[in-house]
Amino acid sequence: MKINEAIEHVKPHLTKERFEHTLRVQETAANLAKLYNESKEKTELAAIFHDYAKYRPLDEMERWIVESRLPKDLLHYHHELWHGPVAAILIEKEYGIKDNDIQCAIAYHTTGRAHMGKLEQIIFLADYIEPGRSFPGVEEVREMAKKDLIHACLMASRNTIQFLMHKNATIYPDTFHAYNDLTRMNRQ
Amino acid sequence: MKINEAIEHVKPHLTKERFEHTLRVQETAANLAKLYNESKEKTELAAIFHDYAKYRPLDEMERWIVESRLPKDLLHYHHELWHGPVAAILIEKEYGIKDNDIQCAIAYHTTGRAHMGKLEQIIFLADYIEPGRSFPGVEEVREMAKKDLIHACLMASRNTIQFLMHKNATIYPDTFHAYNDLTRMNRQ
Repeated sequence: MKINEAIEHVKPHLTKERFEHTLRVQETAANLAKLYNESKEKTELAAIFHDYAKYRPLDEMERWIVESRLPKDLLHYHHELWHGPVAAILIEKEYGIKDNDIQCAIAYHTTGRAHMGKLEQIIFLADYIEPGRSFPGVEEVREMAKKDLIHACLMASRNTIQFLMHKNATIYPDTFHAYNDLTRMNRQ
Repeated sequence: MKINEAIEHVKPHLTKERFEHTLRVQETAANLAKLYNESKEKTELAAIFHDYAKYRPLDEMERWIVESRLPKDLLHYHHELWHGPVAAILIEKEYGIKDNDIQCAIAYHTTGRAHMGKLEQIIFLADYIEPGRSFPGVEEVREMAKKDLIHACLMASRNTIQFLMHKNATIYPDTFHAYNDLTRMNRQ
């Protein structure tokens, strides 16, 4: 699928603000792809579709989780975690996109997971550092993103866990697995 | 086993400093047991033995993990996590202590886990707040321990995760499971 075509598919499903965020993730991810030698086309496609399911009704997302191969334990965690995995399913059903790298990059963009591939790392990080974000500590992650993809992902993962703990929120196991795995890789 | 007898068994295995810590955990845990209506005898026995394996040689602890029913993934995490689970095995082999509550309280005193029983919570918390501890935030946990056992355990669990992330350390899955479970229980 061509990028412009993908953008046209995604646009009607998002709010104006979320669509602009998506375009910033696309640009940020494309820059990271160039820097870290990942396919521009796959990266941009994953970025464009990463929030595709963001505004689906909760009961529709719940049905996709129940009826597809997605992990059922998602249902025991905050529904903010559902849109990534559901989008990975929807782009296959609706547009025939079956590239596993793209699907995983979309599925895990919110939580991360252990053993992320490079495209997954790029989308996870681009979503965190795109220029519209203003989390505490994001500038340090942006600087690290220019030098070390793994280390920048680790910083984003750690900040996310800290943010969630500060909110008294539960933390999806893949988020922790991402932290542990990135911590180990960062030492090597 | 009588408490004085347990103390005599444990003493030669610990440094002077660690033995004094153990006696402070015993007293702190006994106070919590009274406050939260747990068996004094079981609580004190668990407290006395909680660090029993602290100074066993690493290769001996590794052998116990490999050869017993203990989870093998412990071997992929810091050996500081081994002494609790190994002590739970040793007290059964060496002294015939087969009380599951006591064994679990000792096994999980460092990490916690999901669905901790009351005795587990008491030992986990007593080890964290005994008067010799001076972590940042420990005073707030001590105050909470007088009012709400679950909430105090949650605070200890959160502080521990923050401390480990600050050190760039990996975090054992049970530590995260404890945090999530305590977060859920604290809402109820």
